[in-house]
Amino acid sequence: MSFRIEKDTMGEVKVPETAYYGAQTQRSIDNFKIAQDINKMPKEIIQAFAYLKKAAAITNFEAGVLPKEKSDLIGKVCDEILEHKLDDYFPLVVWQTGSGTQSNMNINEVVAYRGHVLNGGQLTDKEKFLHPNDDVNKSQSSNDTFPTAMHIAAYKVLVENTIPGIEKLRDTLEAKSKAFMHIVKIGRTHFMDATPLTLGQEISGYVAQLNYGLKAIKNTLPHLTELALGGTAVGTGINTPKGYSENVAKHIADLTGLPFVTAPNKFESLAAHDAIVEAHGALKTVAVSLMKIANDIRMLSSGPRSGIGEIHIPDNEPGSSIMPGKVNPTQCEALTMIVAQVLGNDVAINIGGANGHFELNVFKPMMIYNFLHSARLIGEGCVSFNDKCAVGIEPIEKNIKAHVDNSLMLVTALNTKIGYYKAAEIAQTAHKEGTTLKEMAVKLGYVTPEEFDAWVIPGNMVGEIK
Amino acid sequence: MSFRIEKDTMGEVKVPETAYYGAQTQRSIDNFKIAQDINKMPKEIIQAFAYLKKAAAITNFEAGVLPKEKSDLIGKVCDEILEHKLDDYFPLVVWQTGSGTQSNMNINEVVAYRGHVLNGGQLTDKEKFLHPNDDVNKSQSSNDTFPTAMHIAAYKVLVENTIPGIEKLRDTLEAKSKAFMHIVKIGRTHFMDATPLTLGQEISGYVAQLNYGLKAIKNTLPHLTELALGGTAVGTGINTPKGYSENVAKHIADLTGLPFVTAPNKFESLAAHDAIVEAHGALKTVAVSLMKIANDIRMLSSGPRSGIGEIHIPDNEPGSSIMPGKVNPTQCEALTMIVAQVLGNDVAINIGGANGHFELNVFKPMMIYNFLHSARLIGEGCVSFNDKCAVGIEPIEKNIKAHVDNSLMLVTALNTKIGYYKAAEIAQTAHKEGTTLKEMAVKLGYVTPEEFDAWVIPGNMVGEIK
Amino acid sequence: MSFRIEKDTMGEVKVPETAYYGAQTQRSIDNFKIAQDINKMPKEIIQAFAYLKKAAAITNFEAGVLPKEKSDLIGKVCDEILEHKLDDYFPLVVWQTGSGTQSNMNINEVVAYRGHVLNGGQLTDKEKFLHPNDDVNKSQSSNDTFPTAMHIAAYKVLVENTIPGIEKLRDTLEAKSKAFMHIVKIGRTHFMDATPLTLGQEISGYVAQLNYGLKAIKNTLPHLTELALGGTAVGTGINTPKGYSENVAKHIADLTGLPFVTAPNKFESLAAHDAIVEAHGALKTVAVSLMKIANDIRMLSSGPRSGIGEIHIPDNEPGSSIMPGKVNPTQCEALTMIVAQVLGNDVAINIGGANGHFELNVFKPMMIYNFLHSARLIGEGCVSFNDKCAVGIEPIEKNIKAHVDNSLMLVTALNTKIGYYKAAEIAQTAHKEGTTLKEMAVKLGYVTPEEFDAWVIPGNMVGEIK
Amino acid sequence: MSFRIEKDTMGEVKVPETAYYGAQTQRSIDNFKIAQDINKMPKEIIQAFAYLKKAAAITNFEAGVLPKEKSDLIGKVCDEILEHKLDDYFPLVVWQTGSGTQSNMNINEVVAYRGHVLNGGQLTDKEKFLHPNDDVNKSQSSNDTFPTAMHIAAYKVLVENTIPGIEKLRDTLEAKSKAFMHIVKIGRTHFMDATPLTLGQEISGYVAQLNYGLKAIKNTLPHLTELALGGTAVGTGINTPKGYSENVAKHIADLTGLPFVTAPNKFESLAAHDAIVEAHGALKTVAVSLMKIANDIRMLSSGPRSGIGEIHIPDNEPGSSIMPGKVNPTQCEALTMIVAQVLGNDVAINIGGANGHFELNVFKPMMIYNFLHSARLIGEGCVSFNDKCAVGIEPIEKNIKAHVDNSLMLVTALNTKIGYYKAAEIAQTAHKEGTTLKEMAVKLGYVTPEEFDAWVIPGNMVGEIK
Repeated sequence: MSFRIEKDTMGEVKVPETAYYGAQTQRSIDNFKIAQDINKMPKEIIQAFAYLKKAAAITNFEAGVLPKEKSDLIGKVCDEILEHKLDDYFPLVVWQTGSGTQSNMNINEVVAYRGHVLNGGQLTDKEKFLHPNDDVNKSQSSNDTFPTAMHIAAYKVLVENTIPGIEKLRDTLEAKSKAFMHIVKIGRTHFMDATPLTLGQEISGYVAQLNYGLKAIKNTLPHLTELALGGTAVGTGINTPKGYSENVAKHIADLTGLPFVTAPNKFESLAAHDAIVEAHGALKTVAVSLMKIANDIRMLSSGPRSGIGEIHIPDNEPGSSIMPGKVNPTQCEALTMIVAQVLGNDVAINIGGANGHFELNVFKPMMIYNFLHSARLIGEGCVSFNDKCAVGIEPIEKNIKAHVDNSLMLVTALNTKIGYYKAAEIAQTAHKEGTTLKEMAVKLGYVTPEEFDAWVIPGNMVGEIK
Repeated sequence: MSFRIEKDTMGEVKVPETAYYGAQTQRSIDNFKIAQDINKMPKEIIQAFAYLKKAAAITNFEAGVLPKEKSDLIGKVCDEILEHKLDDYFPLVVWQTGSGTQSNMNINEVVAYRGHVLNGGQLTDKEKFLHPNDDVNKSQSSNDTFPTAMHIAAYKVLVENTIPGIEKLRDTLEAKSKAFMHIVKIGRTHFMDATPLTLGQEISGYVAQLNYGLKAIKNTLPHLTELALGGTAVGTGINTPKGYSENVAKHIADLTGLPFVTAPNKFESLAAHDAIVEAHGALKTVAVSLMKIANDIRMLSSGPRSGIGEIHIPDNEPGSSIMPGKVNPTQCEALTMIVAQVLGNDVAINIGGANGHFELNVFKPMMIYNFLHSARLIGEGCVSFNDKCAVGIEPIEKNIKAHVDNSLMLVTALNTKIGYYKAAEIAQTAHKEGTTLKEMAVKLGYVTPEEFDAWVIPGNMVGEIK
Repeated sequence: MSFRIEKDTMGEVKVPETAYYGAQTQRSIDNFKIAQDINKMPKEIIQAFAYLKKAAAITNFEAGVLPKEKSDLIGKVCDEILEHKLDDYFPLVVWQTGSGTQSNMNINEVVAYRGHVLNGGQLTDKEKFLHPNDDVNKSQSSNDTFPTAMHIAAYKVLVENTIPGIEKLRDTLEAKSKAFMHIVKIGRTHFMDATPLTLGQEISGYVAQLNYGLKAIKNTLPHLTELALGGTAVGTGINTPKGYSENVAKHIADLTGLPFVTAPNKFESLAAHDAIVEAHGALKTVAVSLMKIANDIRMLSSGPRSGIGEIHIPDNEPGSSIMPGKVNPTQCEALTMIVAQVLGNDVAINIGGANGHFELNVFKPMMIYNFLHSARLIGEGCVSFNDKCAVGIEPIEKNIKAHVDNSLMLVTALNTKIGYYKAAEIAQTAHKEGTTLKEMAVKLGYVTPEEFDAWVIPGNMVGEIK
Repeated sequence: MSFRIEKDTMGEVKVPETAYYGAQTQRSIDNFKIAQDINKMPKEIIQAFAYLKKAAAITNFEAGVLPKEKSDLIGKVCDEILEHKLDDYFPLVVWQTGSGTQSNMNINEVVAYRGHVLNGGQLTDKEKFLHPNDDVNKSQSSNDTFPTAMHIAAYKVLVENTIPGIEKLRDTLEAKSKAFMHIVKIGRTHFMDATPLTLGQEISGYVAQLNYGLKAIKNTLPHLTELALGGTAVGTGINTPKGYSENVAKHIADLTGLPFVTAPNKFESLAAHDAIVEAHGALKTVAVSLMKIANDIRMLSSGPRSGIGEIHIPDNEPGSSIMPGKVNPTQCEALTMIVAQVLGNDVAINIGGANGHFELNVFKPMMIYNFLHSARLIGEGCVSFNDKCAVGIEPIEKNIKAHVDNSLMLVTALNTKIGYYKAAEIAQTAHKEGTTLKEMAVKLGYVTPEEFDAWVIPGNMVGEIK
């Protein structure tokens, strides 16, 4: 490879000849050879930086501290970044400085150098038209840009990926719940036979879980709308023009179409990332719900002959390399693996969030890496689970009926007629002797056959159905 | 010890002669010899059960399914439980059946037997005036009472202990922030000297963190107000009279003075405890904040001679059994240990929450045990930290001034005058040669002494102070 | 209550008149009003301190720095502590200083004051025969005594409670595995029917898990045998006589009968508790195994009529307050709740372990509290699960046979005869048309009935049985 | 893109024309659109599969169930995979079926199709020379190959990356410890000044931590050497020739040069991944150590003027985009972020490990993804930290001396001369009045100046130095 020489305040560095980045990006590549093939800074962060650098340039121009042509040029490069034309020039990894300074400088360098070239210059020019620090980073610090990018990226992924994904699954389950609302089936508590409910009721519980989860996520959005930008180095806003914080937030809101505002307390915004911790707390709640739902569905569809077998889910692929004809609940498996990952990510985020010190939390890249990972996994996992599994759920009515008819727990309907103790005697004796409830109830003399038939009707034991 | 014989549907059991509980409580004692000395079912759950049993009795009476005298008697015993007169009769541990059935039966037995005695009966009477299942547990199941008790206990501890504790600390820090708003000090990012801010600004970040945390907790309260009661065995409400769910929630609200309502979907309420998972997600967010705050405070007060030493905190006790005169930030230590515990409890709750199956989650006692633990630790930890540490925070102005005056990062004020690169050269060379910034700035010829004095004023670098 | 006045280096404190503790214990009670009813310092730590204070007194006497009568007197009080005669005088909680200094001083005070009384003195005497710091704590610091007590307590609970508990369960499962080694049953992978194995083989997997877990725990014991004592304040051993570290470890080994030695690097022993982190890593591994085992057992015993129902476990108690005759796998539930707790405790311990700074980790009480909690829960949980569940596991052969005979995955035996693709066609078509494998295999013309009978024999598909 | 049609037992699928994979790989791409850009199945797993497929082919040939030319051809393609020539044909993600069946089939297909082409065939040939299931997967199941690949990959990464990385850092710290063994410095406990030790002693604690961590990892290696291969579908070894398990393990050992053996209990090997859980327990222990070490180093190097400043670490890059001349402990930050990630990964692995059911754990891809992530992060993180930070640690002796000389805790040396109480009085009064210890000791009349000078010598307070 050919190289050119770049300089920063520490001296000279060799950079790939045609790379639109400079000395500091290269230093980071050289200094952090950690998982470089698998842990690039998430693309959502790069995109968020493009919005904020453009907004900052506009705001700086309006405040009279940056010439129009520089501001426009910065905006132009940012647009190219947003169109993914410059993806190759963001090679840095998550495992760098904890403030994300190197990624901020990576953007600053790409914008400055690509801008210089767009402006007719050469990468090898000693002086560039745009300066990474003095122009692109004007009125900014890594310490306020990186957390701003975190909030932009987090908010966007939640509203564009996570929430719609969960809603899609919720909608499917809601439709299934309605469609199956009158199919009476056995209930199971402690994995043991219990009183009946309908399949629609059972699924309505999942719908409720997802609705609560959506509400939980939405409750955390307002804190994420608050942007650190304008706090600069330590939250005081040193080196920013008057009105900068409010104006730059407004421009970011305009560019993204999302309701961003400036954070009321910049010291908190730099030193803590509780908004991320809190929002991921909602994501882990949804993860917990998804584990429950996916487990139920795979157990209800278990079999085909020696399991529960009350529902059928789509056959998507051969399930075994050795057992011919086997089909497995693979979407449930992907989703429950995702849940485990999200619950692990939550701990990583908690530890990062708890260990900020003084004016800056320096676990930023790790925190947002895990947050975006979870948000995408839940969003995309729900869509996959929905499209390839939930939409195809169908009851296997033969098995459902056999299970409910056979149940000893129908005896519960007799509690209010003959009392808990006698009802228990009926169930226990029927279990021991392998008879039906009715046979035993009559044999023990506690009810007549007519009473039994009138009182023990599964369809009457499922409450009011809406 | 003397014993009497009690019976349940499975047969006879020996029970301590004067114990107000019966066979099922005793079976649980015998069957679960696990950490019996340290993991009793939390008292908050017992209290919550007392409210709900009383409310159920009233509701049953009003619905015409329980005679007035039985209803009144049940209420009377519940009042005794609330007054802690019967504490000795709740010996069961957390590590029992995952539905909490045994604790529900423990209450049912205590209410029935104590009620029988209050009514003039004897514990040894074969027939009791109140029946644990048919009377005290009427229109109920463990499956809806235990989650109801979980929500009552969780809501109560949050509003009576956790939130007031956090608010107390928040108020103190807010007062400190205002009092110290004009004390200019050095900022620190990455543990390294940075541009200045005021001590009041620094503390205002903590205040903001706690305010966000309080909001996060409050966002989770509505889900906790929703009660499972009325769902009975599997959520269908089998064996409940008409209107029961709404009425019993109303009575619980009346008795507790808290805004409880019936849950709109009982299937979710029994099978999942996402309300607990979600609310604990807010608690862990606060824990994360507290770690940050307590760490800062102990590091700012470190020394007395070879640390940072910018604030003084109260000397509460001798700090060392071997080093005479040593005083330590012990309240910070208790609080950060609490944080670690809460973050661990969070994982336990997540795992429990994720592993409900079909119509019932059977990790209930473990989940609420951890929830109440965290809620109390945060509430009581904040009060302790407040009373014994935060209220006594005082600046050590001599050290503060020395640190800020000495700082190389004041050079940042020159960025907008001479550019980032020259400013960097000043700072780096001053560092290398051990001089002041001013000496080096002038020596390098970038500014005159007058310019330096006019441009580099720490007090002007802290932004607008409100 | 009546009080007497006690003094420490900070001044006077009111102490309950007859309490065998002094000013510093009382200060801790007053300063840390956090969960005082539920989070006492674990009794195992108090006991461990008794061993070490006695050992230190003997060692100090032998080194010529403590008179014989003082040494003997200290030993006498320690014996009383070991006999639980002084339990009431250890009121402190986990949430105190992170070095455990206050608990160390609590012991020092109790030993000094009780010793003074044993020696004929009065609690109100101004001068006491034994001084808490200068005599009882001689050649010690909280910083080396508390971690020593941690290791003593951790090692003891592992070898006396945890390991025997796991072994007991392992032995029972091993016996069950052998007893059921020839009962051919259906295998299940992905919750779906798979090729057969025997019930004994299935259980042998659990036995293997527990054996690996036991080995994992035992691998961590050597680090726990290493004691910090002799490091005193920061690991240098200041204020200890020559040979003290080795001698005091030897005395502790003699008194406990356990193979304790002095730690080769005291700086590590005070500043880090990786031995605790590592050993709990083994405990969490066992917890993971127990979740698997308990889940399998409750699912295999599910039903009684609409579940899997291949094994029967003991009916220990009525399972439902509303559903008469219901019996639940309650021991599995207690055990899986314990698993969740241990996995949560693990995170708390990790966070504590990671946050030691400089010469001391100050998350000590929290770490050992969680460690002992987990160790007891696993030990006592395994015994409970063993005695009340595992010993009673019995196969339900009728169901087992029906499931295996019915299975489509027996087709796997044909892979090596007719190839995977044709075998898959047989299974898929039989599933679709609801026929037996044999009918379909013959109908499709891939095998003759005789070939099928010769090749597809469940009992031949389970490999060699040892 | 152009496509060809491939078929599996479920029907036809369109596959990219030149792709060396078939229907099942394509189905997985289509069915699992989850994080496809960031969560590919780790390359270490693909490599491990290449070893095992080659070993299986050899073993099958030797057992007489696979012709030599097929065995050789399979081996040839496996070699190409090991040389990374076929990387493009492994597009599947972690979030697939939990058994990893689809990745096993991906390998089977690539080997079969690439082998067919190497053998002179065309991808569009209807019949291929090698069959993915009947030849490449012969005597195997996903259920035993995937866990085998997990162990191969895990073992390899530990011995080739993780352990050498830790050892490299350990060696550097050991050299530093020796080099700085006589530099007396102040100790710090609770962040507060304590008695002195030497810088070499302090660092020796880190060395000890890493040595224990290495031992912990090595303790977990034996379980990882045990391979599931030969268990096939459910652990019984159905469809394997005699001696297969032992022989195939031997061939894997030969091919990798690592001490793999066949697992003694295959039921455990398929149904549980406790070896992974246990080994990651050791990794998290090392992570905990690294947090401690990295935190200490960044705090000891804090400043340059208003921190502790006792050591200097290399200046690797400009530390701030706004504060000129700032240099930060960025390697410490990357390493502590890694720690947080590993502690999060640990929880994900625990949850996956705990949720296997019956004959198969179906969290396999998620578990090994996290394991390999942690193992690489620790290995590569240690190397980065070592090369760019630890090797350059140098004491700043001026500051070290000032801190120790100034310390009040030197008073501890007087305990054995004048008792703890008088020593405390000296320290407290000196602190209050801002004097030196000596001045106050003499002023209070407890020692003469000569005694003080003879007794209070920091260099004598650090114990024996080895």
